[in-house]
Amino acid sequence: MRISIIGVGLIGGSVGLAARERLGADVTGWDPSPGVLDAACGLGALDRGAASLEEAVDGAEAVFVAAPVGALPATIARVLAAICDDCVVTDVGSTKRSVVAATSDPRFVGGHPLAGAETAGVEHARADLFQDATWYLTPTGSATGTLLERLHRLLRTLGAKPTVIDAATHDTMLAAVSHLPHVTANVLVAQAARALEEESEQLPATGPSFRDATRVAGANSGIWTDIYLANRDALIERIDDTVRRLEEFRALLVAADADGVTAWNEAAREDRRRLLEAQLAGGTVHELRISVPDEPGVIARLALELGRAGVNINDMALYPAPSRAEGVVALWIAGDEPARRAEQLVEELGFPVARA
Amino acid sequence: MRISIIGVGLIGGSVGLAARERLGADVTGWDPSPGVLDAACGLGALDRGAASLEEAVDGAEAVFVAAPVGALPATIARVLAAICDDCVVTDVGSTKRSVVAATSDPRFVGGHPLAGAETAGVEHARADLFQDATWYLTPTGSATGTLLERLHRLLRTLGAKPTVIDAATHDTMLAAVSHLPHVTANVLVAQAARALEEESEQLPATGPSFRDATRVAGANSGIWTDIYLANRDALIERIDDTVRRLEEFRALLVAADADGVTAWNEAAREDRRRLLEAQLAGGTVHELRISVPDEPGVIARLALELGRAGVNINDMALYPAPSRAEGVVALWIAGDEPARRAEQLVEELGFPVARA
Repeated sequence: MRISIIGVGLIGGSVGLAARERLGADVTGWDPSPGVLDAACGLGALDRGAASLEEAVDGAEAVFVAAPVGALPATIARVLAAICDDCVVTDVGSTKRSVVAATSDPRFVGGHPLAGAETAGVEHARADLFQDATWYLTPTGSATGTLLERLHRLLRTLGAKPTVIDAATHDTMLAAVSHLPHVTANVLVAQAARALEEESEQLPATGPSFRDATRVAGANSGIWTDIYLANRDALIERIDDTVRRLEEFRALLVAADADGVTAWNEAAREDRRRLLEAQLAGGTVHELRISVPDEPGVIARLALELGRAGVNINDMALYPAPSRAEGVVALWIAGDEPARRAEQLVEELGFPVARA
Repeated sequence: MRISIIGVGLIGGSVGLAARERLGADVTGWDPSPGVLDAACGLGALDRGAASLEEAVDGAEAVFVAAPVGALPATIARVLAAICDDCVVTDVGSTKRSVVAATSDPRFVGGHPLAGAETAGVEHARADLFQDATWYLTPTGSATGTLLERLHRLLRTLGAKPTVIDAATHDTMLAAVSHLPHVTANVLVAQAARALEEESEQLPATGPSFRDATRVAGANSGIWTDIYLANRDALIERIDDTVRRLEEFRALLVAADADGVTAWNEAAREDRRRLLEAQLAGGTVHELRISVPDEPGVIARLALELGRAGVNINDMALYPAPSRAEGVVALWIAGDEPARRAEQLVEELGFPVARA
């Protein structure tokens, strides 16, 4: 099978690696940035780099366009103008309505793999990036069935779980779980910086809970400005909903309604648990909080012991004490039995542990 | 020196351990929960448990009241009624104006150590919990100088950095960096749960950025309802500021102002960097993002190698790929040289690494 990749970064490069390893596909790529194609060929993500987009897609049966959301409509139009009728074109953008609305060509199917959000660059590409990953497909009614079926089967071969969904639903969901949290993180750091500067000469310590809440603040503008704007109406709806909820809680505070505040907080606790379970495989997720000395190697020994026992750590966060001499490490472990074993092992190592 | 601790949990127990180890103090404690005093004595946090609050404070030169914020005024009043004139009384509550306003007794000085937020219970107590930790003191003008000086010196002995600040400034700062982020985390999980339920049968994956942003959602109501209410005016001000900022960003979206969105995001990026540096000692904090297989022991080997090289990890977050077969681990390392060494070691281990 002949595959073409336009934009060879983490996603494009991983598509190339997987298609060549798992499908024996012949992969040609093009990227506007100099040096990227040589690197991609060196990593085995491409069979060859092309001198132009048109040359890259010539003779392809499937084309993946992995460009920033803002550049997608123009890039996809160039691809559609250069290919034959028997070729499916897809993209990997984080928002879908804008790109889907930009073309009614039956050869185009919008796509968005839920993978690789934490880093970028072809050097991080891996053949199994999409293994068991949800890969949203947002075809319009005009999409050619044979081409949609080809793309669907291809994504399965790459290891992904293609999930057909309409573009509007996709954008609404992503606004709630990704775009809005990025907005609130930005707002939190901005208000804290201003509030703290008003109160003290130098910024005081903020602590781990603030760091977690704002970890995604100021994410790469080259990607995020496009995402915010492409999904702005869904995001505006989420912002309005957030403002409403803040005002509701504000009213509880004004009324000094202790029972209301407690009920509001307990509801959030339950929502968090359900979302965490939905997010992680392997049954109920248990959160263990362990007191450990904050010294080189201690987290290593802890994780190593759990690893030896076959307990996998789904997620981990280290909260150093202000003293920097001790701290608490939170481990998220899926499944009652693994969590129980982990708790036992940690206690045997002599570290105090508590269920959060 | 004779010290009394009312409420022997993580904080109270750690005060006892530190006072006995570093000061050779004679420490008596009282706690309303059965079994806690025996456990505390067994751990060496107390010399003895008392049958009543009044018995516990009898003859004490300093009394630490470590009760929930809502219970502080009444508990402190009982302590003040039971002690002699030459005894200083302090608390460890997370908000300060309400408790400071509740008494003008010259023997009372409000306090709040920035330590131990991540877990609870005397079993997690440690003698160095307060080492180099900021410990806010919020005396009123009526506080007796000799008693304030005694408490200040005592906290130094415990390893803390006593910082005298007025109660209002304390509460404003904590509203910005702690109380508001807890509120937004609750709001994020609530809106996501509702939005996702509208869109799909079962809750879809939310991803690591959402998990980080909502890690403190639904924190212990037994502590947090009191905190929210005790600091409600400062928190209301932060909520109003947050709503204003959300509306400002909303206006940029409505205007589709790409330059405005980018400038807003870059400002947040800079605010985050400055807050992170202020929060962590040891110079500029570098964030390394490393692609690793998500398998038992791999994080261990990584941390172990850095530990062997004497590189300390200030903070760590693991972002599993949807495939659960690979992932990205983010390491925060303070100081240019340690970060450079860490980057080199990680590359030598064969893991792709990028500066965030």
